[in-house]
Amino acid sequence: MSKKIQIVEVGPRDGLQNEKKVLDHNAKIELIKKLAETGLKRIEIGAFVSPTWVPQMSGSIELVRDILKLQSQGAIARNIQLSCLVPNARGMEDALKSGITEVAIFGACSETFSKKNINCSIAESFIRFRQVMEMAKYHKIKVRGYLSTAFGCPYEGKVAETRVVRLVRAMIKMGAYEVSVGDTIGVATPKQVNSLLKKVLHVAKPGQIAMHYHDTRGTSLANVCASLEFGVRTFDSSIGGLGGCPYAKGATGNLATEDLVYLLKGMGYDVPIDLEKLIQIKKWTEEKLGRELPSRVGKAGAWNIE
Amino acid sequence: MSKKIQIVEVGPRDGLQNEKKVLDHNAKIELIKKLAETGLKRIEIGAFVSPTWVPQMSGSIELVRDILKLQSQGAIARNIQLSCLVPNARGMEDALKSGITEVAIFGACSETFSKKNINCSIAESFIRFRQVMEMAKYHKIKVRGYLSTAFGCPYEGKVAETRVVRLVRAMIKMGAYEVSVGDTIGVATPKQVNSLLKKVLHVAKPGQIAMHYHDTRGTSLANVCASLEFGVRTFDSSIGGLGGCPYAKGATGNLATEDLVYLLKGMGYDVPIDLEKLIQIKKWTEEKLGRELPSRVGKAGAWNIE
Repeated sequence: MSKKIQIVEVGPRDGLQNEKKVLDHNAKIELIKKLAETGLKRIEIGAFVSPTWVPQMSGSIELVRDILKLQSQGAIARNIQLSCLVPNARGMEDALKSGITEVAIFGACSETFSKKNINCSIAESFIRFRQVMEMAKYHKIKVRGYLSTAFGCPYEGKVAETRVVRLVRAMIKMGAYEVSVGDTIGVATPKQVNSLLKKVLHVAKPGQIAMHYHDTRGTSLANVCASLEFGVRTFDSSIGGLGGCPYAKGATGNLATEDLVYLLKGMGYDVPIDLEKLIQIKKWTEEKLGRELPSRVGKAGAWNIE
Repeated sequence: MSKKIQIVEVGPRDGLQNEKKVLDHNAKIELIKKLAETGLKRIEIGAFVSPTWVPQMSGSIELVRDILKLQSQGAIARNIQLSCLVPNARGMEDALKSGITEVAIFGACSETFSKKNINCSIAESFIRFRQVMEMAKYHKIKVRGYLSTAFGCPYEGKVAETRVVRLVRAMIKMGAYEVSVGDTIGVATPKQVNSLLKKVLHVAKPGQIAMHYHDTRGTSLANVCASLEFGVRTFDSSIGGLGGCPYAKGATGNLATEDLVYLLKGMGYDVPIDLEKLIQIKKWTEEKLGRELPSRVGKAGAWNIE
């Protein structure tokens, strides 16, 4: 199996979206530029959602335009794939205006979470996704799918694996080139990962699946290891462990990019990302946000195990 | 392979020893009593070391006597194995006075760490261990061995696996019923665990090995999972993640007992330990120490994944 890993840095979107403090336009630009200098090849930089609901993501059109300009000038490497979250046709119109070449749709595996998080049922959300998908296809824009609460829901408890499998298949059938399967509230252990991936990989190839773990209960790197066994090679993470799920009490954030990179390098995977630079960005982000971020490697420092 | 797990709670010794704030006699008694009520069956409660060097461990004779009295009265379950660290013959004399029925010797796999941590070479430490062992055998006291810095040393870097294997063999040959192999500075990933355990299990049975991980870089639960694959079923942890290595900059503590128990329960292992009680003890300990402890489950709360 391949040793090549893809990391999708979700800090500027999934991370910042869940932070109390809103970073201004220039700070976001600086953060994305810094991340782009570490060797990361995929970065989610914004969301075309209502600024009333998610003030942290307001100004995403301007942000994307400025970032794409920097990329066209070579100030951000041209081989970095940037993307934005798009909840519906309205958001997709903004995405088209911005010039972004990849968008992500965001669904849930739990009905209650879907209603509380995106204000519609799962079935309704897929009608919206279909609209987004048609517009994206027409404009030759890549679409990534997210499925949150794939292991547990803060309202409903355990989530049925069959539903996750059905939704993964639906997203792929619809045209998503990859589905990011998320343990939104950080409850899975490798046993659940094994059980779910075994079933998911009946309807998708390992290359179509990304895993998105939260380190809420310290299990995320163990879950990454379990996923690697299945040939999954794409993982979402956020710098410093930025973010977290606002609907989960006491939840720490996403798996930190530094921790993920440390693990994968230590295990001999091909991860050409500068860990020291990541640690510096984590510190910079802490200063900007005025709070300590939960990443472990960011605190302890790197160490050359190999 | 068996689903039965043994957890060695090292918070009252390894944990408190590395805390700035010293808990008084009564607080230690209370902590140990609380831990004994969770279902934990092995607890390391003190160390017979010089109070000049380790003030946190002073009064261990009185502590052990009071705890054993409570145990003889049934206020602490009689089937709980209590133990203390013993560095040399002088400490072993104290152990004998205290009435403890299990002791632990503590060595390192790195020469520099041995000198800085226990003030002698590895060879010299083994001469001391032999004296302790002879006294212990005569008095029918069980001896557990610790080998610290088995994956990395803060002074020497990577540690040779052959040395770890040689020292594990030496401790077992000497009479240790179990050797706890420690990633003292928390640098290992499952790749290193796999590589080392494969070799260690040429000289020891899985039942003779305990793994002692630190969550310094977030990898400890992944390393626990890797160890389980080899049949290792005994793990050290400390309540709340108490402690940490004072010689490792920015190091967070031992693997937290709550995090370990959450993982193992989630994976279907036989761990009859009350997670909610552990979380309450973590909070109590934080109040006593006046600092937040790093455990993840202690912060986020348990969740019934199965």
